[in-house]
Amino acid sequence: MNTNFSDFSDIRICDYSIEEYEQIIEKFHGNKAPGLLIGGFMVDLARKNLPAGQFFDVICESAKCLPDAVQVLTPCSIGNGWLKIIDIGRFALTFFDKHNGNGVRVYLDTEKVKKFPEVYHWFFKIIPKQEQNTSVLLNQIRSAGTELLSFQKVKVNTAPFKKEKGSTVVICPKCGESYPAKDGKMCRVCSGEINYMAD
Amino acid sequence: MNTNFSDFSDIRICDYSIEEYEQIIEKFHGNKAPGLLIGGFMVDLARKNLPAGQFFDVICESAKCLPDAVQVLTPCSIGNGWLKIIDIGRFALTFFDKHNGNGVRVYLDTEKVKKFPEVYHWFFKIIPKQEQNTSVLLNQIRSAGTELLSFQKVKVNTAPFKKEKGSTVVICPKCGESYPAKDGKMCRVCSGEINYMAD
Repeated sequence: MNTNFSDFSDIRICDYSIEEYEQIIEKFHGNKAPGLLIGGFMVDLARKNLPAGQFFDVICESAKCLPDAVQVLTPCSIGNGWLKIIDIGRFALTFFDKHNGNGVRVYLDTEKVKKFPEVYHWFFKIIPKQEQNTSVLLNQIRSAGTELLSFQKVKVNTAPFKKEKGSTVVICPKCGESYPAKDGKMCRVCSGEINYMAD
Repeated sequence: MNTNFSDFSDIRICDYSIEEYEQIIEKFHGNKAPGLLIGGFMVDLARKNLPAGQFFDVICESAKCLPDAVQVLTPCSIGNGWLKIIDIGRFALTFFDKHNGNGVRVYLDTEKVKKFPEVYHWFFKIIPKQEQNTSVLLNQIRSAGTELLSFQKVKVNTAPFKKEKGSTVVICPKCGESYPAKDGKMCRVCSGEINYMAD
């Protein structure tokens, strides 16, 4: 699939041209996922509606694709904890100030998406994947940009996200590995609570 | 803190010199977290013990720091689902073939870490953070490299990770947003199950 990016040369996603952004997601995520392309416009829209230079945390309402748009475009990652996933399957991102909870929520607007048939068919899985025209789909997303989205000002309940004081780290008497003391007398694998091994 | 990387010029972490790797984690994670530096050696050790060119998924046994080492060094990300977090607070990564479950698990060896006092004091939180000498700590980690680690061959139970067929996407009659049909008559926010807003 060859894309003529000159048609989209005016489009910026945060600090990148759309071509640069697509290269970044392809490298990080493994492919140019349509949801991640929309995600780029979502992050861009959220940031434009936040005070410049403000630190923020992000809640992603989906575990699929969308978190990676946040990770490549903002300082928030799953490992540093500034990105939180509340996986309720809605296509939405909330950027908020962790001290006072004030923020913006950006979401795919199901009314607006109807104006873009290829996006609508893909998003609601109306056309089987093998019948989709990926090139047309991606071009519709690039052309639509933030026209697929709406946003709202919100106030997040920050209490559940307050950083717990890190638990003491101790050695499990059974496996000899380290684990958080708050988990009890042994680690959660040795206590039999969790086991992801086949044998 | 100035680091003389010429002392560590032979050290490679996957495709990078240690200096390049530290720049990458600083950009992605926001700082040169000691756990992420150890994480780099863990990913490197795991990959060296897997057949070259094999595709693998990764399970991270901690939600803090460690997932970011996987995300910057492998094709696995939280958004593409190849990285899974089972947050039991053990400092370990398991790389496995999703078809047959065969893989390797790399973990911080609590016996071996005793040989590196600054690392030991930091990891078990024996010395308060403000009394830690970060420069000495990072240099001990760089010098120790994989000497802090052990690994074991494992077989993962892949059943829980089999990709579900994606749910139909429908519109919530209350909020008008999209959500997975499997969640019921309305989205999990409108049903009252989950709410992360303050009002």
